[in-house]
Amino acid sequence: MPSETQTIDAARSAKAFAELDDWRLDDRVKGVPGGVRDLRLGDVGHKGWNLLREDVPLPAAVLKAPVLDNNSRWMTQFLEASHAVIAPHGKTTMSPQLFQRQLADGAWAITVATVGQLQIARRFGVKRIVLANQLVGRQAIAYVIGELAQDPGFEFYTLADSLEGVARIAAEAKRAGLKRPVNLLLEGGMMGSRTGCRTREAALAVARAIRDSAPWVALRGVEGFEGLVQGPMEEREKAVTAFMEFLLGIAQDCAKEKLFAPGPVILSAGGSAFYDIVAEKFGSAGIGETLLVIRSGCYLTQDSASYRNFFARLQGRSAVAGKVAGGLQAALEIWTYVQSRPEPGRLILTAGRRDLGSDADMPIPLYWARPGRDKSVTPLEGHKVVELNDQHAHVSVPVESPLQVGDMVALGISHPCTTFDKWQLIYLVDDAYNITGAIRTFF
Amino acid sequence: MPSETQTIDAARSAKAFAELDDWRLDDRVKGVPGGVRDLRLGDVGHKGWNLLREDVPLPAAVLKAPVLDNNSRWMTQFLEASHAVIAPHGKTTMSPQLFQRQLADGAWAITVATVGQLQIARRFGVKRIVLANQLVGRQAIAYVIGELAQDPGFEFYTLADSLEGVARIAAEAKRAGLKRPVNLLLEGGMMGSRTGCRTREAALAVARAIRDSAPWVALRGVEGFEGLVQGPMEEREKAVTAFMEFLLGIAQDCAKEKLFAPGPVILSAGGSAFYDIVAEKFGSAGIGETLLVIRSGCYLTQDSASYRNFFARLQGRSAVAGKVAGGLQAALEIWTYVQSRPEPGRLILTAGRRDLGSDADMPIPLYWARPGRDKSVTPLEGHKVVELNDQHAHVSVPVESPLQVGDMVALGISHPCTTFDKWQLIYLVDDAYNITGAIRTFF
Repeated sequence: MPSETQTIDAARSAKAFAELDDWRLDDRVKGVPGGVRDLRLGDVGHKGWNLLREDVPLPAAVLKAPVLDNNSRWMTQFLEASHAVIAPHGKTTMSPQLFQRQLADGAWAITVATVGQLQIARRFGVKRIVLANQLVGRQAIAYVIGELAQDPGFEFYTLADSLEGVARIAAEAKRAGLKRPVNLLLEGGMMGSRTGCRTREAALAVARAIRDSAPWVALRGVEGFEGLVQGPMEEREKAVTAFMEFLLGIAQDCAKEKLFAPGPVILSAGGSAFYDIVAEKFGSAGIGETLLVIRSGCYLTQDSASYRNFFARLQGRSAVAGKVAGGLQAALEIWTYVQSRPEPGRLILTAGRRDLGSDADMPIPLYWARPGRDKSVTPLEGHKVVELNDQHAHVSVPVESPLQVGDMVALGISHPCTTFDKWQLIYLVDDAYNITGAIRTFF
Repeated sequence: MPSETQTIDAARSAKAFAELDDWRLDDRVKGVPGGVRDLRLGDVGHKGWNLLREDVPLPAAVLKAPVLDNNSRWMTQFLEASHAVIAPHGKTTMSPQLFQRQLADGAWAITVATVGQLQIARRFGVKRIVLANQLVGRQAIAYVIGELAQDPGFEFYTLADSLEGVARIAAEAKRAGLKRPVNLLLEGGMMGSRTGCRTREAALAVARAIRDSAPWVALRGVEGFEGLVQGPMEEREKAVTAFMEFLLGIAQDCAKEKLFAPGPVILSAGGSAFYDIVAEKFGSAGIGETLLVIRSGCYLTQDSASYRNFFARLQGRSAVAGKVAGGLQAALEIWTYVQSRPEPGRLILTAGRRDLGSDADMPIPLYWARPGRDKSVTPLEGHKVVELNDQHAHVSVPVESPLQVGDMVALGISHPCTTFDKWQLIYLVDDAYNITGAIRTFF
C-alpha cells in the first residue's frame, strides 16, 4: 500500500481543502434552503439539520456516511486479498473529499477521464494520476507538460492508441524541453467498442513509435477498458476474459521486443463490474515485474440496481471476494416529494433528468416517509418509475399505495456517475438522516 | 409589453449581476484552461480567446451571440403579431444573464420549474415569476410565503391540481398571516401524462376549494402543459388542440361559477413546440378579459434537431408565424476533439453524457476544423453519433472521412435543456468563434 506522501501533496491539499471548507453556500445552489447566505461548506454538518424533518428542500442528494465506511472497508480488504492496487476512477464522484478518503484508504493513484478533471485533482494535491484517455488538444497537452515540468512530485500516466497521438505528445514535450518522459500506457480496445488498438499488430506499431520517440515519451504498461461489453452475463464474462488475454498478448509482444521503459510494467483495466476478473487474469502475465491496477469508480457509493447486480455476480464468482466479509451497499439516494397523484395508479415526483441519471436503469423508489409523522422510513414495494422528464419522475403505483401529495420518497440510483454530476452539493447523513456534513463535486 | 420596472427589481438585479460578473473562474470549472486562476466572468470576453485557435480546452460549450440576437428578434415579432405574452421557461438555460435579456425583450415574467430555480430568479431581481409546478414541501412553501411577505413587488403564480395541495398552501399562508393571497393557476392534465386534473369535474373541485380557502389563496387562471404528446406530428397537433379545448372548458366552468379572482384570467400553456396553437386557441376563450401566456424556454437558443423540426412545422401551419421574417436558428454547440479513430469507420470524440443531452436525439456532428490550419469550419456530412458514454461519443463515419486524431468537431444538440445543465460556463462567440463573453448557469 502506498503511503500518502507518495499520493498527496500535503501543502497543496491543505490549501485547497481549506478553501473548499470555506466555500460559501447560498440558496442559488441546488439543495440549499431558500434564504440561506454565506454558509460555509465545512459548517453544513453543524446546522443540526435532519432530512426527514424537512430541514432542507427537496430534491436533495444524500450519501449515507456509514455505508461509505462499509464500502471503503470492503474494498480495502478485497485489495489486500488480491494482487492488485486501485486507482479509483475519480470521474464517478468528482469529489476531492472522496478522493482524499480513497487515497487515505491506500489507493495507488486517482484516475480521471479528462484534463479538466485532472486540473481539479491537481489543485487538491493528488500526485499520482492516471488519465484513462488519450491526451489531445493544445491546452490539454500544454497543461500536462507544464505540470510535469513544474512539479517533480507529479507522476502522470495517459493512454496511447495511435501514431498521431504519440507524435503530438512527443513533439510538445520536445518543444517544451521536458526533462522527463510523458508516461504512456498502450491501450488495447475491442472491435466495435471505444478507444484502443484493435489488433496486436496495431498496438505493436504504436509501442514501437513510443520507443522511437524517446526520451519524450515512455511506455509504462498496457491498458484497456472492459466495461462496455454487452449481452447475457456469462457471455460478458467470457468476453472480458478474452479481452484480458488480448491485453496480455499485447504486453507479451512489447516485453519480447523490450519496448517497455525500465521498472514494473503496469497492467490496468477494470470498471466497477469485472475488476475481480481483471485482477485474476493480470496476475499471471508472465512478463516479469508487473503492477496490477484496477480502477473501479463506483465501489465507494455502489448503487441500487446495475452495480448491485454486478456485485452479486462478482461475489459469486470471485474466490478472492469470497474471503472478504460483508459486501458493498448503496450509499447514494435522491429524496423527492410527491407533487401530484393525478390518477390512482400514477404519481409525479419532484425530481427528473436534471437530478438523476437513467442511462443504466430508471431510478428505484426505495422508501417513503410522511413529514410531521415519520422519523424513520418505510420500504416501498410495487412502485416503479416509468418516465423521466427534466424535472419530474412519473411513477406507476399500486392503486392502494398510501402515498399522497407532500409525502417524501427516496430514489435509489443505477450507475452513480450520472447522478453525481447532477449535484454540486451532496449531503452526508447518518442512519437517522441527520445531516452530518456535505461534499462538493466539480463537474 | 410590460416595462422592465414591472419585471425587474433594479437594485437586487444590479447587486446580483455585479457579483456574477465578479465570479472568479479558475481551472476547476469545466471549459477553463489549465492554470487559470481568478479570472472574472465579466473579463472572459476581454481575453482575446478564439475557439478555433484552441485558446480554450475542449469539450467546451458555446452560444453564438448573433444567433441569440436573431432568435430574440424573431420571438419579439411573433409575439407582436400574436395576442400572447411570453413567460419564457427559465429552466431551459437557468442563466440569469439570459433571463435579463428576455425580460429586456419584453417578457411578461420568467417561468421556473422548481423552488430552487425560483430562489435564483429572485436573487437576480426577477419580480414576476410563474412556478409552473405544484408548490410542495415545508422549505419551498415557507420560502415563497416569506418572499411574498417581505417584498410587495414580488408577483408569484404557482399551479394547483389537488385538494391537499391547496389546503397545504392555504394553511401555511394563514399560519404566516400573509397579507395577500398566493396566486394559483388551476392545472389541467392529459390522462396518462404528467401533473394536472384529468377531468373538468376534478378541476372544478380544486377551483372550489381555492375559493373556499380565500383569502389565503386566489384562483388567477388555468394552465396546462401540452409538450408531452407523442405520435406522428398531425396526431400531436390534434391532441394539443383537443387539450387546449379541455383547458378552455375548465376556464369556462370556473368563469360560470365566478371562481376566478378579480382581474384578467390567465390562460397559460406552451412548451417550445406548439405555442402557436396555444396562442391561437386561447385567443377565443369567450370568458371576458384574459391574458394569454406562452412559456417557450427553447426559442432563444433553439436546437439542431428536435426543435428545429418542430419549428419548421410551426412555420408551415401558423399564419401568425408566416408574417414574421426569418426564423429561429441553433445557437448552442458543443466542441470536441477527435481522440481516437480506432477503426476506419469509427471515431471517438472527447464529449459524452456529462457534456450533452441525448434524451431527444443523439447530438449531430455539424462541422469540423483542423487546428493550426483552419480559421473557419467545414460542414460534416455522413457522420453520425451512435453511442454516448459518460465522457465519450462514438461516431460512425464514412471510411473516406478526413477526420484524424486532434481535429475539432462541433456537435449540435437536440433539446437544449439537458445540455445547458451540463455546463456552468458557456462561452459566447461571434461568427468567427472569437470568444466575446460568457454566461454562467445555475443548476
